Amino acid sequence: MYRFFVSSDQIHEKDIIITGADVNHIKNVLRMKNGEEIAVSNGTDPAEYRCLIRQITEDEVHCSIIFVKEEGVELPVSVTLYQGLPKSDKMEWIIQKAVELGVSRIIPVATGRSIVKLDSKKASSKQDRWQQIAIAAAKQSKRGIIPEVGPVMSMKEALKDASSMEHKLIPYEMSEDAMKHTRNLIGQIQSGEQVAVFIGPEGGFEEKEIEAACKEGFNTITLGKRILRTETAGMTVLAWLIYQLED
Amino acid sequence: MYRFFVSSDQIHEKDIIITGADVNHIKNVLRMKNGEEIAVSNGTDPAEYRCLIRQITEDEVHCSIIFVKEEGVELPVSVTLYQGLPKSDKMEWIIQKAVELGVSRIIPVATGRSIVKLDSKKASSKQDRWQQIAIAAAKQSKRGIIPEVGPVMSMKEALKDASSMEHKLIPYEMSEDAMKHTRNLIGQIQSGEQVAVFIGPEGGFEEKEIEAACKEGFNTITLGKRILRTETAGMTVLAWLIYQLED
Repeated sequence: MYRFFVSSDQIHEKDIIITGADVNHIKNVLRMKNGEEIAVSNGTDPAEYRCLIRQITEDEVHCSIIFVKEEGVELPVSVTLYQGLPKSDKMEWIIQKAVELGVSRIIPVATGRSIVKLDSKKASSKQDRWQQIAIAAAKQSKRGIIPEVGPVMSMKEALKDASSMEHKLIPYEMSEDAMKHTRNLIGQIQSGEQVAVFIGPEGGFEEKEIEAACKEGFNTITLGKRILRTETAGMTVLAWLIYQLED
Repeated sequence: MYRFFVSSDQIHEKDIIITGADVNHIKNVLRMKNGEEIAVSNGTDPAEYRCLIRQITEDEVHCSIIFVKEEGVELPVSVTLYQGLPKSDKMEWIIQKAVELGVSRIIPVATGRSIVKLDSKKASSKQDRWQQIAIAAAKQSKRGIIPEVGPVMSMKEALKDASSMEHKLIPYEMSEDAMKHTRNLIGQIQSGEQVAVFIGPEGGFEEKEIEAACKEGFNTITLGKRILRTETAGMTVLAWLIYQLED
């Protein structure tokens, strides 16, 4: 079933009115007709509105709500992925995969070993593009919310951003942590809690960055005995959270 | 440390002789000198030979073995990923990521919904290219073995290939399996056993393919509540095996 996102004010008691670019998509690309069923979400809460298309006008698609599916497809925890800025277009790929795997928020982080440097203009246009990728991936994987891609932060800003979260994990390949320790930390996470996951760029974190994170209450974890690329690391932790926490 | 693969007959009691393309790489790209340390594996068993370069000739690099690191970086189980042929160059990416995450063998499978069709000539040249990608990824992630990329099989051949394995998992998005059931199945896997993981192409498996697999002793599993793309599915299962089985 096709899924569309609308803002909350487009959702009425019995109807939803779709406007904007989705109208053309429904009419001319999908060639949908009155009576066809679609799924609509407001992008911020997990409820899914199942609707029938009632009328298609020039600028609007009017839909009748059949029922609301409250049971979400969302991870039982809210995960923020703080991703050290990787090279070239890897960030796009990381966003796509993290959204598939249930991330709630992605914050790009300019760490000491990030090779990519973004001035503020570039950073803002990148953020827009990355947000679009998150929206497309959320639709594709039938997410109930659209994960937010935040502005690029410094390591210091990112640590501050994560400070109130219940669980703060930072994979570090130089750590002596065994998987048992990692399982133990992940095993303590409860439904409804917030989890921060920090991933270094290609060259990993600097030792002083790890020290600063540990001082802020972060726990180092291992990702197993092989060396993972930066784009594989965050996905691996998200997969573990699914495995540990879903019903 | 740089890692090189040699065949077993190049490994002697106290010495290893590197030949072929790696010689040029060591001499002219890495510009290594006598006395530098390297890691050498034979690509089939997990032992890692730590060596010092003793002499560099036109065609050979002679190395003295310092010690053998028997403790491997390999997953405690042998995992074969049977991957439904995906579109475009996704297979390359899947191989790279699966090798990083510890796969032992990858078998491309021409399933009912695979859009890509390979004639035998194309399939053979693809297999060569895919094997090269596995070798590069094994070096990058410092694997002790080089995972084998097998020939393209039909679904029937693939099911037969997996028939003697202890654990046979097939994620199926239409299944009613809960994560608890999936955790239970993965929790039964013991070190040293063989695990077959079947992943459908973009359109998923046909129902009759799932039925055929179940008849051959496969268990369907869930990958969580979101829809994962084909290239994310195998990685997720590999990440779970790391989480469940590593020390």
